[in-house]
Amino acid sequence: MKAIAVRPGKPNSVHLADIPEPHLDEVQGGRGVKVRVLRVGVDGTDKEINAAEYGAAPPGQEVLVLGHESFGRVEAVGANVTELFPGDYVVATVRRPGSSIYDRIGLQDMTTDDIYFERGISLRHGFLSEFYVDDAAFLVKFPSGLKEIGVLLEPTTVVEKGIHQAYEIQRRLRVWQPRRAAVMGTGTIGLLAALVLRLRGLEVTAFARSPKPNPNARLMEDLGARYIATPERSVLDVAKEEGGFDLIFEATGASTVVFDSMLALGKNGVLVLSSVTGGDRRIEVPADRINLEFVLGNKVMVGTVNAHRDDFERGVKDLAQAEAQYAGWLGRLLTHPVKGLENYARLFETLVSARGAIKVFCQVADF
Amino acid sequence: MKAIAVRPGKPNSVHLADIPEPHLDEVQGGRGVKVRVLRVGVDGTDKEINAAEYGAAPPGQEVLVLGHESFGRVEAVGANVTELFPGDYVVATVRRPGSSIYDRIGLQDMTTDDIYFERGISLRHGFLSEFYVDDAAFLVKFPSGLKEIGVLLEPTTVVEKGIHQAYEIQRRLRVWQPRRAAVMGTGTIGLLAALVLRLRGLEVTAFARSPKPNPNARLMEDLGARYIATPERSVLDVAKEEGGFDLIFEATGASTVVFDSMLALGKNGVLVLSSVTGGDRRIEVPADRINLEFVLGNKVMVGTVNAHRDDFERGVKDLAQAEAQYAGWLGRLLTHPVKGLENYARLFETLVSARGAIKVFCQVADF
Repeated sequence: MKAIAVRPGKPNSVHLADIPEPHLDEVQGGRGVKVRVLRVGVDGTDKEINAAEYGAAPPGQEVLVLGHESFGRVEAVGANVTELFPGDYVVATVRRPGSSIYDRIGLQDMTTDDIYFERGISLRHGFLSEFYVDDAAFLVKFPSGLKEIGVLLEPTTVVEKGIHQAYEIQRRLRVWQPRRAAVMGTGTIGLLAALVLRLRGLEVTAFARSPKPNPNARLMEDLGARYIATPERSVLDVAKEEGGFDLIFEATGASTVVFDSMLALGKNGVLVLSSVTGGDRRIEVPADRINLEFVLGNKVMVGTVNAHRDDFERGVKDLAQAEAQYAGWLGRLLTHPVKGLENYARLFETLVSARGAIKVFCQVADF
Repeated sequence: MKAIAVRPGKPNSVHLADIPEPHLDEVQGGRGVKVRVLRVGVDGTDKEINAAEYGAAPPGQEVLVLGHESFGRVEAVGANVTELFPGDYVVATVRRPGSSIYDRIGLQDMTTDDIYFERGISLRHGFLSEFYVDDAAFLVKFPSGLKEIGVLLEPTTVVEKGIHQAYEIQRRLRVWQPRRAAVMGTGTIGLLAALVLRLRGLEVTAFARSPKPNPNARLMEDLGARYIATPERSVLDVAKEEGGFDLIFEATGASTVVFDSMLALGKNGVLVLSSVTGGDRRIEVPADRINLEFVLGNKVMVGTVNAHRDDFERGVKDLAQAEAQYAGWLGRLLTHPVKGLENYARLFETLVSARGAIKVFCQVADF
């Protein structure tokens, strides 16, 4: 069958591969599920793997099939699969268990192992192919009525995990009631973070560089969030004038913003770091002040990566609520479809260079 | 009665004051407790208040009685005090409730108010006097068999709160089992942090500037902790060679150490910031790397100040266990007693300039 793959370690090696179609019995205990792939989103991770910054093929193989943001339909299930049926729409989680104590209880998103097993990223093939097979334990059922936006579930789970971790951490405060949130960055993750926070009733201020008007600012405002262009007013300006934020979700990929955000938290505030900063940037920071404010204000900063199966379940509920509350909004994130695995070159060109892209994805097959 | 007080705002104003003896009925509802003060520890906060860096007298008064690390004996109790009797030894908590939702449920250590009410620090008299009166709700009974080290309870609560917050936060990991801890700094707080972590079974490495041998290093080693002099080997060196730490307790007062500590955490690690850095120091940090490691390792940083009543209760239990396990160790922290409130000048001179001081305290009255 067709698949989009790279040769890990070789820059710009993305190509159309021909790989064997997977079989149900590749999963033991009758728990296999065969899924026809319908759509797969691509993001910075795919770009970086194709640039050979990281990524690893499954043991003994030369290529790695890309794609970790999946959406598909069940074709067949093993004898012991009770929770899914052919025809069901599903999204697969990404990381597979290693050996740490966290992996052993289904918390592989919190693994302490040095080696990760991640579909489409590290040591396991991804979903940019006609079919895939996986254990039912790693598949999350998705409502058929929302299938048009199903490919947004995986990026939503990044946000769900970060916000859930913040709330878990703040249980220590017993009566934490966050009201004011800031979202740093208005890319896919920033937009989805604002959505999830708005659904929880928080007032959201989004910060990004581009002046208004711009489509992402409009998307923020259509959620009832405020959009501020940082050249005019920074998160520190706003914190100084209006008070610090209860929750800040950082999704810019710029580490300078991380340190500004530390100073824009209110007392008992929590800063969620979700963006990957692969560079080597060093900056000067007001070290005494950052420490002092964290101490005197009982503040927290937490890093978050990957997502738990429960974050996928929470994501399904939030996407459903979003469609009910902000009808059509999620569909507006699906800016750049590319039809067919064979158009891999255009898929990656769009990913790398399309202006105004929010979500670039491959339409592998029709619904 | 005699008291040691300052005129807030006036540097070096510490003096012996004559103030009215407090009465039980200053507390409403028959919940008052009158306490004879036996010992009061002093620390950097007292030094900074006497330097007029902060501190505020009670409304309508010109002086602030100093002292927040108390130890005393109950003289008399109001009609509705059931939990304390005359003759009981007690330690008072420091912060009194303001008006935020946290204050209203006894979590004034997590207040979001801008104004603090803290005995001996802000708007409330401290304990450096012959007697004090307070509500029974703010007094914690201390075992008579441990009275010699009772004055160490309040500093211990700083450590108890920080470590408790770390464990509360890590409940999100469900099976967190920290094994390797680092303690930055070997002053009173660093020593007590190492003690509390050792009592919880963690392997502890303490980092400080002074080469071995020195008394604080010896104290660390007597707990079974390892002492490393940072000019020889930094926390980053150790993390690189032996792996990152599960928990780091920062108690140096040097913000450069804070940022080094961020990079010395292991996956799922937690960094507890407890030291006050009042300066204006700016430093250059590897911003991309700090953010990246927090994100990929699901790491947490938390600031902590003040302590909850429960932290005092936990402190009592830990001090009792410490005496049972490391007999005599706590007594060795009581390096510099100064007898009598009238010797306030020597008390402060010792606090400011004594070499090798761990705990400087005033013996206000005999047991």
